[in-house]
Amino acid sequence: MSSESRTEISSLGEFGLIDHLTKNIELQNVSSVLGVGDDAAVIDHFGKQTVVTTDLLVEAVHFDLAYTPLKHLGYKSVIVNLSDIYAMNAIPTQIVISLGISNRFSLEAMDEFYEGVYAACSKYGVDLVGGDTTSSQKGFIISVTAIGEVAPDKFVKRSTAQKGDLLCVSGDLGAAYVGLLFLEREKKIFMESPGVQPDLEGESYVIGKLLKPEARKDIIEFLASSEITPTAMMDISDGLSSEILHICKQSNLGCVLYEDKIPVNEQMKQAAFKFEIDPTACALSGGEDYELVFTIPQTEYDKLVLNEEISVVGYMTEAGQGAHIITKGGSKHALTAQGWNHLK
Amino acid sequence: MSSESRTEISSLGEFGLIDHLTKNIELQNVSSVLGVGDDAAVIDHFGKQTVVTTDLLVEAVHFDLAYTPLKHLGYKSVIVNLSDIYAMNAIPTQIVISLGISNRFSLEAMDEFYEGVYAACSKYGVDLVGGDTTSSQKGFIISVTAIGEVAPDKFVKRSTAQKGDLLCVSGDLGAAYVGLLFLEREKKIFMESPGVQPDLEGESYVIGKLLKPEARKDIIEFLASSEITPTAMMDISDGLSSEILHICKQSNLGCVLYEDKIPVNEQMKQAAFKFEIDPTACALSGGEDYELVFTIPQTEYDKLVLNEEISVVGYMTEAGQGAHIITKGGSKHALTAQGWNHLK
Repeated sequence: MSSESRTEISSLGEFGLIDHLTKNIELQNVSSVLGVGDDAAVIDHFGKQTVVTTDLLVEAVHFDLAYTPLKHLGYKSVIVNLSDIYAMNAIPTQIVISLGISNRFSLEAMDEFYEGVYAACSKYGVDLVGGDTTSSQKGFIISVTAIGEVAPDKFVKRSTAQKGDLLCVSGDLGAAYVGLLFLEREKKIFMESPGVQPDLEGESYVIGKLLKPEARKDIIEFLASSEITPTAMMDISDGLSSEILHICKQSNLGCVLYEDKIPVNEQMKQAAFKFEIDPTACALSGGEDYELVFTIPQTEYDKLVLNEEISVVGYMTEAGQGAHIITKGGSKHALTAQGWNHLK
Repeated sequence: MSSESRTEISSLGEFGLIDHLTKNIELQNVSSVLGVGDDAAVIDHFGKQTVVTTDLLVEAVHFDLAYTPLKHLGYKSVIVNLSDIYAMNAIPTQIVISLGISNRFSLEAMDEFYEGVYAACSKYGVDLVGGDTTSSQKGFIISVTAIGEVAPDKFVKRSTAQKGDLLCVSGDLGAAYVGLLFLEREKKIFMESPGVQPDLEGESYVIGKLLKPEARKDIIEFLASSEITPTAMMDISDGLSSEILHICKQSNLGCVLYEDKIPVNEQMKQAAFKFEIDPTACALSGGEDYELVFTIPQTEYDKLVLNEEISVVGYMTEAGQGAHIITKGGSKHALTAQGWNHLK
């Protein structure tokens, strides 16, 4: 928070705050019939199916304001929900957002947060149509619900992968987790020796993936324009293994995953080595990548091979064969979920 | 919490908990195409408009678990959102729910909470289609988003009341606030002398209105069957004055409200006198009634006069005349908002 002035939120009251935060909204979608300012928003979805998802982000559980700029947090709060909508093969159209705010936050801090929210809405063509703002006893609480549209029955579930399908992922994996390790390390150093300047030279990629992730709208658009309908899809928020195991369990299938096919960024790899951890472990078990994992029939392979943002990492097998990873050394291990479990 | 056994939530993990809490869901609406268990829910709304609302409830701000049974809290968390959907003249069809849970809550406690959620869903014909479950550093956080349907352009806003319209309210007002006063008093006595039994004899009405409110589905159904379309409507969550002032401001009108027309329950009146407070003040400024306030053209008066659950309490005037209340003694006062402002 780099606020020079400080306006107490209590000086506006709830309705004053909502007016202040929403006064510049311009609705982008014709389906947004009525936005903020009534009991509920109204959305027109004639001839489309509505997709809805929600995420709750809690300070000190999901984010640390010691190293998370509020503007980035606002942006990311929207992105994590849009990512779930894209993971259904749908297009996000509206969000509603509820905030619980303790009195240590000023109006200027809320403005920074909303700057990030509006930046994400603008970039992804989504309308903010409502919400709720209240106080919290402790910390900052963010609840976002995103709504999207999909042509009738074109949504893609997790449970419909088929035996023999190719297992694909977008982008690269594990960087957000390594970014988190850096920021946690620098925070610890700062707490112990407040004079020391942070040493994040050259780590902009991994830190950017953590603090300002993007949702893979481009992949959904590519799949649509290439006329590829994935048989199953989900977004990668808890690490690749955990998500693949969800697809296997819900589709009643097994899989083979090849370690050498898992896409990792070179900067992430070097950064992982600095922490003496295996980049593959980061990709498999690190969270918050917000990439997509999906399955396609083998016959669709030719259509996606030219897209450098998509990697084929394995294939689906019968359930009885289990879920395995073949390491670079050629050995075979059972895939285990060690995702980011907030309840542990 | 009357849990005899205690299962730590951490023993299930997030996905285990979600499976456990959602395993008995049966979807009630044909528009609920896909429910819990994927990145997002899918809702089919061909030929209807979608209405969406969200509310965030935070422990120690919105509820006190010292006197709020978790089952009632689950019920009420749903109701407050359904009330917003009905206030749009729409029918709620789905909800998504996110919970932040500190480790002082057991699985049995969550089961009690969800019993209330499912009871409300069942009573109001609403499907729980998704959510998010995470930990919280402190206390219990509940975020509910409700989705509803309305025939094209039949939704009712706050901003479209007309000069001369009758101002109507459902049910009776102020009881939830008096219920809160009783429970706060008994809590204080209990804290000071833990042996003393609570003295809530005869206060079941006001306490019931606070702990287990209902949403006015019946009023929306009555208006539809009587072919009355309100010109403006909202639900009463912050007290009657605050809500009427919203309608006045957003419709650019004034109003006259008659104190002797404001519906109050006899038990609430007696209870208010015990606290030496004015029942009218409770009705005007007490929160959480979840009744409806709406305006109708004078020509519709004959249609609703026989419904004992609806009271005509005043009429709309030009903006220049301001918003006033005429007291029982015949004097005229400006209406002021002293609603339940969580940010104060």
